[in-house]
Amino acid sequence: MPDKLTKIMEQFDKGKIDIFTALAQISNSNGIENIGFARIDHDRKSRCGFPEFIYGASKTIEQLCKIVPTLIKKQSPVLVTRLDADKGKALKKKFPQGEFDELARVFIIRQKSQKHGNVVVLTAGTSDLNVALEAKYTLESCDIGVTMISDVGVAGLHRLLGEIESFKNADAIIVVAGMEGALPSVVGGLVSCPVIAVPTSVGYGAAMGGIAALLGMLNSCASGVTVVNIDNGFGAACAATRIIQNARRKSEK
Amino acid sequence: MPDKLTKIMEQFDKGKIDIFTALAQISNSNGIENIGFARIDHDRKSRCGFPEFIYGASKTIEQLCKIVPTLIKKQSPVLVTRLDADKGKALKKKFPQGEFDELARVFIIRQKSQKHGNVVVLTAGTSDLNVALEAKYTLESCDIGVTMISDVGVAGLHRLLGEIESFKNADAIIVVAGMEGALPSVVGGLVSCPVIAVPTSVGYGAAMGGIAALLGMLNSCASGVTVVNIDNGFGAACAATRIIQNARRKSEK
Amino acid sequence: MPDKLTKIMEQFDKGKIDIFTALAQISNSNGIENIGFARIDHDRKSRCGFPEFIYGASKTIEQLCKIVPTLIKKQSPVLVTRLDADKGKALKKKFPQGEFDELARVFIIRQKSQKHGNVVVLTAGTSDLNVALEAKYTLESCDIGVTMISDVGVAGLHRLLGEIESFKNADAIIVVAGMEGALPSVVGGLVSCPVIAVPTSVGYGAAMGGIAALLGMLNSCASGVTVVNIDNGFGAACAATRIIQNARRKSEK
Amino acid sequence: MPDKLTKIMEQFDKGKIDIFTALAQISNSNGIENIGFARIDHDRKSRCGFPEFIYGASKTIEQLCKIVPTLIKKQSPVLVTRLDADKGKALKKKFPQGEFDELARVFIIRQKSQKHGNVVVLTAGTSDLNVALEAKYTLESCDIGVTMISDVGVAGLHRLLGEIESFKNADAIIVVAGMEGALPSVVGGLVSCPVIAVPTSVGYGAAMGGIAALLGMLNSCASGVTVVNIDNGFGAACAATRIIQNARRKSEK
Amino acid sequence: MPDKLTKIMEQFDKGKIDIFTALAQISNSNGIENIGFARIDHDRKSRCGFPEFIYGASKTIEQLCKIVPTLIKKQSPVLVTRLDADKGKALKKKFPQGEFDELARVFIIRQKSQKHGNVVVLTAGTSDLNVALEAKYTLESCDIGVTMISDVGVAGLHRLLGEIESFKNADAIIVVAGMEGALPSVVGGLVSCPVIAVPTSVGYGAAMGGIAALLGMLNSCASGVTVVNIDNGFGAACAATRIIQNARRKSEK
Amino acid sequence: MPDKLTKIMEQFDKGKIDIFTALAQISNSNGIENIGFARIDHDRKSRCGFPEFIYGASKTIEQLCKIVPTLIKKQSPVLVTRLDADKGKALKKKFPQGEFDELARVFIIRQKSQKHGNVVVLTAGTSDLNVALEAKYTLESCDIGVTMISDVGVAGLHRLLGEIESFKNADAIIVVAGMEGALPSVVGGLVSCPVIAVPTSVGYGAAMGGIAALLGMLNSCASGVTVVNIDNGFGAACAATRIIQNARRKSEK
Amino acid sequence: MPDKLTKIMEQFDKGKIDIFTALAQISNSNGIENIGFARIDHDRKSRCGFPEFIYGASKTIEQLCKIVPTLIKKQSPVLVTRLDADKGKALKKKFPQGEFDELARVFIIRQKSQKHGNVVVLTAGTSDLNVALEAKYTLESCDIGVTMISDVGVAGLHRLLGEIESFKNADAIIVVAGMEGALPSVVGGLVSCPVIAVPTSVGYGAAMGGIAALLGMLNSCASGVTVVNIDNGFGAACAATRIIQNARRKSEK
Amino acid sequence: MPDKLTKIMEQFDKGKIDIFTALAQISNSNGIENIGFARIDHDRKSRCGFPEFIYGASKTIEQLCKIVPTLIKKQSPVLVTRLDADKGKALKKKFPQGEFDELARVFIIRQKSQKHGNVVVLTAGTSDLNVALEAKYTLESCDIGVTMISDVGVAGLHRLLGEIESFKNADAIIVVAGMEGALPSVVGGLVSCPVIAVPTSVGYGAAMGGIAALLGMLNSCASGVTVVNIDNGFGAACAATRIIQNARRKSEK
Repeated sequence: MPDKLTKIMEQFDKGKIDIFTALAQISNSNGIENIGFARIDHDRKSRCGFPEFIYGASKTIEQLCKIVPTLIKKQSPVLVTRLDADKGKALKKKFPQGEFDELARVFIIRQKSQKHGNVVVLTAGTSDLNVALEAKYTLESCDIGVTMISDVGVAGLHRLLGEIESFKNADAIIVVAGMEGALPSVVGGLVSCPVIAVPTSVGYGAAMGGIAALLGMLNSCASGVTVVNIDNGFGAACAATRIIQNARRKSEK
Repeated sequence: MPDKLTKIMEQFDKGKIDIFTALAQISNSNGIENIGFARIDHDRKSRCGFPEFIYGASKTIEQLCKIVPTLIKKQSPVLVTRLDADKGKALKKKFPQGEFDELARVFIIRQKSQKHGNVVVLTAGTSDLNVALEAKYTLESCDIGVTMISDVGVAGLHRLLGEIESFKNADAIIVVAGMEGALPSVVGGLVSCPVIAVPTSVGYGAAMGGIAALLGMLNSCASGVTVVNIDNGFGAACAATRIIQNARRKSEK
Repeated sequence: MPDKLTKIMEQFDKGKIDIFTALAQISNSNGIENIGFARIDHDRKSRCGFPEFIYGASKTIEQLCKIVPTLIKKQSPVLVTRLDADKGKALKKKFPQGEFDELARVFIIRQKSQKHGNVVVLTAGTSDLNVALEAKYTLESCDIGVTMISDVGVAGLHRLLGEIESFKNADAIIVVAGMEGALPSVVGGLVSCPVIAVPTSVGYGAAMGGIAALLGMLNSCASGVTVVNIDNGFGAACAATRIIQNARRKSEK
Repeated sequence: MPDKLTKIMEQFDKGKIDIFTALAQISNSNGIENIGFARIDHDRKSRCGFPEFIYGASKTIEQLCKIVPTLIKKQSPVLVTRLDADKGKALKKKFPQGEFDELARVFIIRQKSQKHGNVVVLTAGTSDLNVALEAKYTLESCDIGVTMISDVGVAGLHRLLGEIESFKNADAIIVVAGMEGALPSVVGGLVSCPVIAVPTSVGYGAAMGGIAALLGMLNSCASGVTVVNIDNGFGAACAATRIIQNARRKSEK
Repeated sequence: MPDKLTKIMEQFDKGKIDIFTALAQISNSNGIENIGFARIDHDRKSRCGFPEFIYGASKTIEQLCKIVPTLIKKQSPVLVTRLDADKGKALKKKFPQGEFDELARVFIIRQKSQKHGNVVVLTAGTSDLNVALEAKYTLESCDIGVTMISDVGVAGLHRLLGEIESFKNADAIIVVAGMEGALPSVVGGLVSCPVIAVPTSVGYGAAMGGIAALLGMLNSCASGVTVVNIDNGFGAACAATRIIQNARRKSEK
Repeated sequence: MPDKLTKIMEQFDKGKIDIFTALAQISNSNGIENIGFARIDHDRKSRCGFPEFIYGASKTIEQLCKIVPTLIKKQSPVLVTRLDADKGKALKKKFPQGEFDELARVFIIRQKSQKHGNVVVLTAGTSDLNVALEAKYTLESCDIGVTMISDVGVAGLHRLLGEIESFKNADAIIVVAGMEGALPSVVGGLVSCPVIAVPTSVGYGAAMGGIAALLGMLNSCASGVTVVNIDNGFGAACAATRIIQNARRKSEK
Repeated sequence: MPDKLTKIMEQFDKGKIDIFTALAQISNSNGIENIGFARIDHDRKSRCGFPEFIYGASKTIEQLCKIVPTLIKKQSPVLVTRLDADKGKALKKKFPQGEFDELARVFIIRQKSQKHGNVVVLTAGTSDLNVALEAKYTLESCDIGVTMISDVGVAGLHRLLGEIESFKNADAIIVVAGMEGALPSVVGGLVSCPVIAVPTSVGYGAAMGGIAALLGMLNSCASGVTVVNIDNGFGAACAATRIIQNARRKSEK
Repeated sequence: MPDKLTKIMEQFDKGKIDIFTALAQISNSNGIENIGFARIDHDRKSRCGFPEFIYGASKTIEQLCKIVPTLIKKQSPVLVTRLDADKGKALKKKFPQGEFDELARVFIIRQKSQKHGNVVVLTAGTSDLNVALEAKYTLESCDIGVTMISDVGVAGLHRLLGEIESFKNADAIIVVAGMEGALPSVVGGLVSCPVIAVPTSVGYGAAMGGIAALLGMLNSCASGVTVVNIDNGFGAACAATRIIQNARRKSEK
């Protein structure tokens, strides 16, 4: 490879190849695993702080059964999200060392690891539990500690106030809420740690599949609340992981 | 008139005129004042519990100057809403006995009257004040007592909690809030009186001119909160008036 | 507990704990029943005027079977809304003292009680009946009297006019309508009592699942009409309950 | 020309030119007046039943001053719609034989003609008057008789019922309404003649610039109501003209 | 009844009852058939020009089986729209004299009658056929003559041009089109008769269930095209019926 | 036919028939095959550069079985898109010389032909594969060469950069992407050939069925990227065919 | 105060006051400064990690001139956002120790302080600069270090790649982009630190005032990117402040 | 530089730097001109086929006056789009060798060049002219030949058919249309060359600022029509340039 790279550089230097050809030739030398219908990005953890996970929604069970072993082989934890029951059970059968949680729609094969930090996952109602669980499994796959607190929506404010001590010292709080999505505004006004809001599709009519909650959270009157896509417990967990792992790297320097 | 009505009835009875012709002929006998471009409904108070008010937004100053005297003549209070400064000042000049509030965009000529009941008008932020004032002037024109409490949005929950005693015994609470519109949910969970939510157009971007607050309020997790149009302080006040005046009529029977 | 509270107060007083810690510690002392995935709010009736009801849409039958007994135990009426046939029948089997109405999608266990007031529930068409029934069961669970009047939409105006006597003296009118949602505007112009509009998802195409009716009702030219979420018969009933029970409390004072 | 056409036909017949080339060559022979930036369609009246009118909104005053004379020259009536005050006054100055109505935003130069039929234009409120006037001027330019009835919205039903006799025998009714747009549903249920609904942009907030009224009208529970674009008084008038002129042609045969 | 009416009139005349009570009492005397969950409007034909038809979408088969006989009894044609296959077949079994068309989702029991007028129903594509058939059955139930012309969308313009002779002399043209909904604009520019556009839900993605076609038709550059709801072949047929029957009534006078 | 055409021309020339009647009569003479519910446009290839293909989504299997033979008979390739598995398998059984690809939802009967040009089809993720395959089959039916490159989305930029050499010399690039649809912007900034973006419905929540990707692509900061409908691999392929075949025709002249 | 609090506790303990009355009475004892139209929250910094800032958009200059001194008095930095030029200049005149940046629409009075951490603010284009500056001023008011990198949008990828070294070690990256909003996805795939995306209203047409960028960012294929409201540079800065200050507090413990 | 590059390569080769650091260091060596608030991409023409143009909408006149000279210096043509009159005239004054077209909102400084190819720009109406002109100026700056054909919308089909010969042999057709945006569908069915549709914001009400036309074009029933953003004449011209220049490069090889 050195020879090849030296050659690329010489050509670029002499103007024989342009900048993007140079980039392309170098890019070609990296460790992506191309299995035809997918390219597995084994370096994602070093680059982004969490390994490559698998979005299961639109993949066939055949495709999943080809991707999973590429991760197992590398001792990476396996996390497949948005699995219906049929696909989840098929994966469980094929890889019995894993777990399938039908409510969370997640299949997971854990790797032993030490947990870091503490992310509190709050839900406004019982119906938001599936999204909160997706966040929980993702955090665990990222080696992050998790505390779950359920059913503390704003219509019964004392339920939330009674738990302040449990969440005000978190490294980050993930707030999962549907309907009007008011909980993150209230939480954001109570704490100084990062607050990541996850709107859910819980509700009907003018809830519009979570759009109402999403808009509510984007317009939060509590400053510094950030938002992810509707039902995206996974993304909120990755965002919390970025916060915790980046701070750890910084403090370790 | 009796003769005319008897004749209508006879014709309807003999099948010579149909039901709607009969209705039409009777309707023609009522006391609407037709001034060409508008028909003043002087009986609205006896029918709906509040007099005819004037939506000023798309009326010319000439039209307004023709409508106002028809109300003065009947000793009805005058309330013109959604007036820009030019039209408001012109009305004030023409009818100096009235008041024009530029922030509320309201022109009002009061009639002496006794106030009944107590409606609390809460605002989430200072920016919601104009809408709250529209509600206040309307309530006053309907002979309803008003208490204003400003800037108690959910991002500083103790501001609201500190005022519970002031509003929990109201006849009705009008909650005015923009951005995510979370305040009515919190209030609805704290009190048992009627709660009318008014979304405002305060905010930007994904607030979408008040749509975010409107959707939030429609999806309130606090049961029994009702909603009116964006920035519709007037409508909320009329709704509160219906509640209070109807209860009075009932209790007086 | 007195000792604990005195200690909280002392610490807060000396500045050792902040306002929210104080709130939290007090909140912790209230009577929420935490059953893990849900926190049952047994004091809701004293606070909001109606007991805690159960939103059945996204709860599993296992979860429902755990929540229902906590309410029975307290002699609270049980109302589970938005139940599909499978879950409804399972509940009926488990709690044979209750009723399941498949059209209304409601499971109810009644408590003997005296009814107060009279709420009229109007529907524009036969297709709006399921939402009207949800309102009816909710009102009954709140001890409110109900009168149902069906199929009086505005395309045949005499159907409605012929019923004026039945509804103009109500304590509140709940108007349930889909498609263009015009009925509340017409009713609001005929009566002085509170009018609560419920848009339904009846219709197709540009009805957009009830959005057309919702927007129509929010823009009602009849002043003082308030609106709840699409298909939210439950919420309209709670709003009517707030109106009636609050007036009763006031008049009893 | 005959020679040219014969030649086209021969070529098409021998397969030397294709169908669209033939169409193109024939199309080229018709009486469009090409003035560079616009092509005046002088045959529109014979084809569609009304002459070419001018959409003034996005045309410069220079362009308008070039188009108007091409119509005058042909003794066609001139109707320019959606003119702001500056352009309207400039046209009036240039063509003093015309009239400019600032409220309707219409400039018109009439041709003497006999009126046919009777179109009733109903408005829900005073604020809808500008759109109704656009319809009126257009109908007059199409030689159709017009009756205007204003401010008969559904919140005061007896205002409308009192006018039934005036509109139930119309050749067509144009119903102009903003806000919730309920009037066409009520009218459509009262009459058997064609009803054309025009939503207006009157209102605010959830009226969304007329979308609420538009959706309401499209979902009218009164069968056989048709709808045109928001504020499109012009289009409604053209539709009514099609109805009346087509019936006249038929009956004259 | 005369006595009762006389009494109403007297009371109204003496101010003992108000205008709406009078209306109500008269309305009560008309011929609506109240069967509990529905009120059959037997006078609709005399009032609106077509009899009461049945919207089948959200009615149960039990409800339908109770409504149909009330119409049969009055020798009215029966038309039930938006029936799924199960309900349609059940009706056919119960009322074997009727027909069920699964593509059109229509059940019909015809009454012998003479046809009047000629409505041309054009479809842009084969996929729009179901909506066109709903229009056809409705027109037949209204005693109107129908001509169907299929698959003449604008992407192959000569298909349409080749049929001009068939449709340019119609009493009205119903143009049924999905996707971009361009056909009514082209047709509207070719003919002078009334053009009623029906957007269909044919298409995917940005067709948004017919919204794209609906918007296209509302913005048609061909003047005087009117529009009905998405997939509303029924409504377009009723509108055409209003046009033809009203002209007949007029010409018969 | 010559006689008939000559006669048309004479009549038009003498003003006995108008321009559109002339067009109609000529249009009638062209080679559309009318099979009742559909009109097969056998000349589309000569006119548009690709033959008539069949949109299978809303056609019945009976209709498809009547249309396919009309194309086979003319030696045209057969391409039926948007077929569900049942219809696809039925077609395969009836026409065993064809292929059915369930993922692409395409049925194809190929004609031997020479391929021209090279279109690169890029997909952002594995989930976009079905749309990419629809493009591929369409290109093959249009005699265009295809190169597929999968799973090169922007979150792992080096995957894309490593492939620059493969796509920068294409005749056109079709970029298929869901979620935020960012890939076309990046590709458009790297190459000078035509870039056609296809948004897909991959994603959930705020992806809104592909609307997010569609809007993203329409607002691409890379100039000169064009867009087709969501999931419209077929349309992108036709657009690429227009580009390549038109250039060939030009260069052959 | 101790006496008062002891009394509250006793009453609550004996059941004489309910939980919320207790909360209310305690809340009343905290240090909110009520200036009538607004309640200044001086404890926000200790609670949320940043002081109270002022949303200037809908406040009058009179209101602003009353609020600013309350902050100055407490030695809090002053930051007023969303000021138009008139209000900004008036503030500058009144409080000459401050700065007004017209592009950023920000008025700021700084307090001397030490900066912590490093937030990189990336903009896709020059047009996004105003939003980026709002973020910068806010970060500075929160005592956070800032690095600005402009005009590195994805259409010229090498502009971004050439800056990787400058941003990959940030404590957090704020990515500001309009149009399709693709930049956060690309950045999120390159780095492991927290990425906060700010959609801007830059663009036209289908950019829909920033909705396109917002949707794009919410659907980012790079995991763990969080989003704030359109043009909300302020909120992104507060979110970054929460991340950095929380980590500092944690590491200091 | 060679030394530097060799060093990068060695480090990457030994694993001392990762792939993106290598990319970054190479990217840093390219010819972007960084002028602080903007980075001028002088190599865009060689990469994308057209030079860097300037989006003027949100740039200040000061910024524009700094960017323009960097392009002049390189003998690149200058094209500034979306300029209001003030900024356009200021530029014209500063750079008198340029032209400012107020209707097109474009400032242009031409470079002598040979034109290639022929792009036909069709407009549906006179109101679409400004967008068509933006396309024309852009094409000229890209050295492409242009033919303009105006006001050939589908409501007068013979206007379009009469011009077929002028456009059916184009290298590409740009079709500019507002309102329902039907013209591209008709054109796409008539020709085999590439068709690029540009929706415009011409219209009102349900035109929704061009959304109606945009949706219409995306759903075109004519296969292979591609679409750009609303009013984006510039982008359509760049797309046409990609088509023509790529074909030239190919044919020259």
